[in-house]
Amino acid sequence: MSYAERRERLASWLRGEALAACLIEDREGLRNPSLRYLCGHPEDACLFVLASGRTILVPWDANLARSLASADEIIPFTDFDRDVKAAFAAIARREGLSGRVELSGSTAHTLVEGIARASDAAIVCREGGLDQALAGMRALKESAEIASLRAACAVTNGILRSLQASLGEGGERTEAEVAQFVERGALEAGAEGMSFRTIAAGPARSFGIHAFPSYGNGPFGGEGLSILDFGVLVGGYPSDVTVTLARGRLSAGQEEMVGLVEEAYDLARSLLAPGRATREIALAVDSLFRRRGYAMPHALGHGLGLEIHEAPRISGRETNASVLAPGMVVTIEPGLYDAREGGVRKENDFLVTESGFETLTEACILRLP
Amino acid sequence: MSYAERRERLASWLRGEALAACLIEDREGLRNPSLRYLCGHPEDACLFVLASGRTILVPWDANLARSLASADEIIPFTDFDRDVKAAFAAIARREGLSGRVELSGSTAHTLVEGIARASDAAIVCREGGLDQALAGMRALKESAEIASLRAACAVTNGILRSLQASLGEGGERTEAEVAQFVERGALEAGAEGMSFRTIAAGPARSFGIHAFPSYGNGPFGGEGLSILDFGVLVGGYPSDVTVTLARGRLSAGQEEMVGLVEEAYDLARSLLAPGRATREIALAVDSLFRRRGYAMPHALGHGLGLEIHEAPRISGRETNASVLAPGMVVTIEPGLYDAREGGVRKENDFLVTESGFETLTEACILRLP
Repeated sequence: MSYAERRERLASWLRGEALAACLIEDREGLRNPSLRYLCGHPEDACLFVLASGRTILVPWDANLARSLASADEIIPFTDFDRDVKAAFAAIARREGLSGRVELSGSTAHTLVEGIARASDAAIVCREGGLDQALAGMRALKESAEIASLRAACAVTNGILRSLQASLGEGGERTEAEVAQFVERGALEAGAEGMSFRTIAAGPARSFGIHAFPSYGNGPFGGEGLSILDFGVLVGGYPSDVTVTLARGRLSAGQEEMVGLVEEAYDLARSLLAPGRATREIALAVDSLFRRRGYAMPHALGHGLGLEIHEAPRISGRETNASVLAPGMVVTIEPGLYDAREGGVRKENDFLVTESGFETLTEACILRLP
Repeated sequence: MSYAERRERLASWLRGEALAACLIEDREGLRNPSLRYLCGHPEDACLFVLASGRTILVPWDANLARSLASADEIIPFTDFDRDVKAAFAAIARREGLSGRVELSGSTAHTLVEGIARASDAAIVCREGGLDQALAGMRALKESAEIASLRAACAVTNGILRSLQASLGEGGERTEAEVAQFVERGALEAGAEGMSFRTIAAGPARSFGIHAFPSYGNGPFGGEGLSILDFGVLVGGYPSDVTVTLARGRLSAGQEEMVGLVEEAYDLARSLLAPGRATREIALAVDSLFRRRGYAMPHALGHGLGLEIHEAPRISGRETNASVLAPGMVVTIEPGLYDAREGGVRKENDFLVTESGFETLTEACILRLP
């Protein structure tokens, strides 16, 4: 589907909701990848989509927009003194937008109030409106998106294989060496870069879900549990995998955690199917952990797309009403963390199909002597 | 100043504003480094600071919090089903918070509404309140913060020198090679990592203010203008510099842009002084560019701290009322960009002192034959 076709789908939704327009805003500190989804411009811009389908892009970087973006009109953000309220007021006036205009529910409270004051439009800002409509569109991947996701996963699998060979050879490595090895592999294989900041946490730091800092000059892959969580980007679409490296003789507690995470992973995988509520899968895993006296401090998985964490969420939260459908690409990533034993997590990416699912990546818990 | 002392200063401000408490929330997609400033916990948590000074941290990663954070009490976010509204309601009830409680003005509109519904507290969410108080505290660096910033700048200067030596040797380099060279240098010199994703844009892509993707496998440093924008982190505090590499014979347009950026940089530097309104400096540079027929599409500079872009902003916007004061650390970074000629930017970091300023970094526009 082209950017224009996606915008026409959104415009049709706007008309159905009796909205005159919507504003997609992406800025440092509050990213909104629906911007890129709808017009190809990667970041730092306001995108106005009118119910007529007409689209106006107001980018911080007009040169970049002219080379990358699809929109009916591009107006540099500097024309409005780089102020969202001013851009909104001017465009609403020029386009005669006096009806309801929706903003993302994540928009800063003070900005929503400021825009409402600066314009005659009736501002709509809610949970489950525009955000949910866009999340729903984006959750069901089109064939070109699936091709990019497959390509990202293929690059990732190549890196996993060369990493396994390299780690099997032994020798001391720092967290940073492993992170740079992964990144070089990604770029050499044609990826645009990493899909998020690589986490390489050696045995002393793997107890953190997301180690901080994400990697450093400390040792990686020695005796005990090390976690490597990374992904690559191809055509804007990510992979996301986690390998746990279990080296040497593990403690009884570590062995139990590793076994339990493998069991949870297999359980979750056995429940992946179109039509299944993702909450059901997450609750099954939570319950397995709880029966054995453990608790997982994060969600079981998430959708993958222009955003590394997007719909559908795979969590046990009461508000999670997601149901798996063909075309969704999700992670499954059970993990357990202990301040003394360290952490273990296993994460792979899956494409939900008409008949079940396809496993796209090959990360594992790697036992090394 | 210790974390507890900073919190006591904030609590005193809360009392002065007749607030019962405030909530600092940091989450993926909406970072708030005041969390780290006030308790040392790096990210993904809610921090409740009461007017009494009592402080409750609700972290996503309780293991990480127990190893890093300073707070009177730590309650895992999982106890509230990882839901901010539920955490707020429970803590407000337990602590008897029935008065005014302030949230950051950046808090999502829908979350502000949800918290207001879930609790008896009177929610305050405004521009210029809590956010401005914290920005003001953080803008004036304490001696330990200045020591970290100096250390980050020293690492950066070492990298700049080795980079200059390496680029002077000629030979083809890719953007990714340069970015990884910089990162290896940072980690080897003891930095925690990079302060933001390195931008390495060769002549074909330097026209973007922030090239996208930020680096790739394309050539860097060949004939024309290449931009390298990077910074490192030491103890949580960043440097931020931009080098432009001008190789070979430049076009008349490129020569003019380079000369003008140097002129703008010198002009801005000549105006750096305690007591000076930052808007005045920015307007002087904007006016210089305008007189010569150019326009700069971004702000002239910004404060450096736990956030890479923080107070004081150095921009010509009407709403910018910042005044330089001793202890502020800021960047100056004039830049010009042209779709055909490419881009040029020069950025260094400065500490404002009682008597003027100190230049902390040594980036330049590097001419190579």
